[in-house]
Amino acid sequence: MTAPQETETPYCVYRPELNSFPGVALPVFPRSSGYVCRKEKEMEDVPPGVKNFVQLFWGVSGEGEIEVNGERCLLRAEDVVYRLPMQPHRLRTRSPKWKYRWIAFDGPGAETFLHSYGYPETPFHAGPCPHEYFINFKAMMLQRTPYCWRMMFAEICRILAAAGGTNSEPTVENRIVLQVIAICKDRYYDPDLNVNALAAELSVGRSTLLGIFKKKMNLTLSAYLSQVRLQAALSLLKNTLMPLRNIADECGFRDVNYFCRFIRNNTGRRPSELR
Amino acid sequence: MTAPQETETPYCVYRPELNSFPGVALPVFPRSSGYVCRKEKEMEDVPPGVKNFVQLFWGVSGEGEIEVNGERCLLRAEDVVYRLPMQPHRLRTRSPKWKYRWIAFDGPGAETFLHSYGYPETPFHAGPCPHEYFINFKAMMLQRTPYCWRMMFAEICRILAAAGGTNSEPTVENRIVLQVIAICKDRYYDPDLNVNALAAELSVGRSTLLGIFKKKMNLTLSAYLSQVRLQAALSLLKNTLMPLRNIADECGFRDVNYFCRFIRNNTGRRPSELR
Repeated sequence: MTAPQETETPYCVYRPELNSFPGVALPVFPRSSGYVCRKEKEMEDVPPGVKNFVQLFWGVSGEGEIEVNGERCLLRAEDVVYRLPMQPHRLRTRSPKWKYRWIAFDGPGAETFLHSYGYPETPFHAGPCPHEYFINFKAMMLQRTPYCWRMMFAEICRILAAAGGTNSEPTVENRIVLQVIAICKDRYYDPDLNVNALAAELSVGRSTLLGIFKKKMNLTLSAYLSQVRLQAALSLLKNTLMPLRNIADECGFRDVNYFCRFIRNNTGRRPSELR
Repeated sequence: MTAPQETETPYCVYRPELNSFPGVALPVFPRSSGYVCRKEKEMEDVPPGVKNFVQLFWGVSGEGEIEVNGERCLLRAEDVVYRLPMQPHRLRTRSPKWKYRWIAFDGPGAETFLHSYGYPETPFHAGPCPHEYFINFKAMMLQRTPYCWRMMFAEICRILAAAGGTNSEPTVENRIVLQVIAICKDRYYDPDLNVNALAAELSVGRSTLLGIFKKKMNLTLSAYLSQVRLQAALSLLKNTLMPLRNIADECGFRDVNYFCRFIRNNTGRRPSELR
């Protein structure tokens, strides 16, 4: 991730033909992007029905007000908010300076595509703005080869991915989750690796650990550890001729019968049917 | 783009719960990926109705046969082909070794999503395999944080983008197209910049230049040059208070009236309405 570039000049880049789509087939069409630096009290007021595209805003510094479904919300640094096609575009700076980046896309599938990420309708904390993806998008919009159009779409997807949070901020919770993931990856073959062992090793209370993991991963820790073992087992079943007993052993199962039940419960098939 | 890694071990990574989707909202769901090195005459024959996901294959070296709609096709190095959900999976190696990478995704929108790229149904030349994107995908499938799921989807989009060709192979045609793009970007303000001037400057026949550009860009050269001027004009109209006469001048238009007609014809609005 590139650092915010304080010296970077604000810009806006547009698809030249705003009212028609490029001659390249895509799920949604990249439309425009900008890096904005607004002055104190500066405002913009575009009524509903004018802006026929999805627009996503990512706060860089300062803060501003943005209307969402008729309510005024604050967009702070590291927050993200979006505007759906035909919604109004009403902004007002609420600090001496307000810097944000935005990106827009359109096409018949634009709104559905955005909704498929399930993000909240009001501004939410996303983390540091992924400047690099916006800068790549800008450079490609100035070239517009068929490859550029497709990669602009991929950059939109990287921006949307980062908007959900990257777990890369150096918080205690992120550090714990990343340690758990690393330990599970390295030592899943050990049948003694379980929630209690992880809590002891990381010197974290069992219930604290379970709570943090569930919150960050949207999945329980024991389900995650099972998944790591299942993933390893699937890989060995499908790609080797190793006996089941050895695969069970390699994946942290002491009992081969329990291993076979585990595979059947999780895949709907017997281990032999997966080979 | 990373170079093909001759020493890289073949692998397959799977979403642990193949029959259910991860608890993260996404347009389509990353499912699995692999790097395969097959021996001479090795084959695989999975009948229709078994593999319920989209799978994309990217030839790395050697060649193999792959059944597409009942016909046997060859997949060579740098070729791409895909398989739709429920289609059979029939492969046979046709050289001493056959190396390829593959990636799979599923979910209710998977087939529509793939079709939205408009790629041919039979194997097509795509260029060198973007190993980096596959390797990123693999690393993220072994972690599976919510961010990883979203970035795996973005990597699928980067792989699909590259499958359409990157124009980065050092052919004469690619060099010419990239030179034209660079000249247009640097000198669109010059009203004397046109198809004839570009052909003379690049020492290429006018009709050869037009043919190459159209083939690679899916757009005529004069339309492209107009787009570059329109893009620059939109940026100045929307972001500055510069008089129209100066904007026309900055964008390579000698006549301000012609400039205003050009804007109206291309955006459906007068320049003053765009400010």
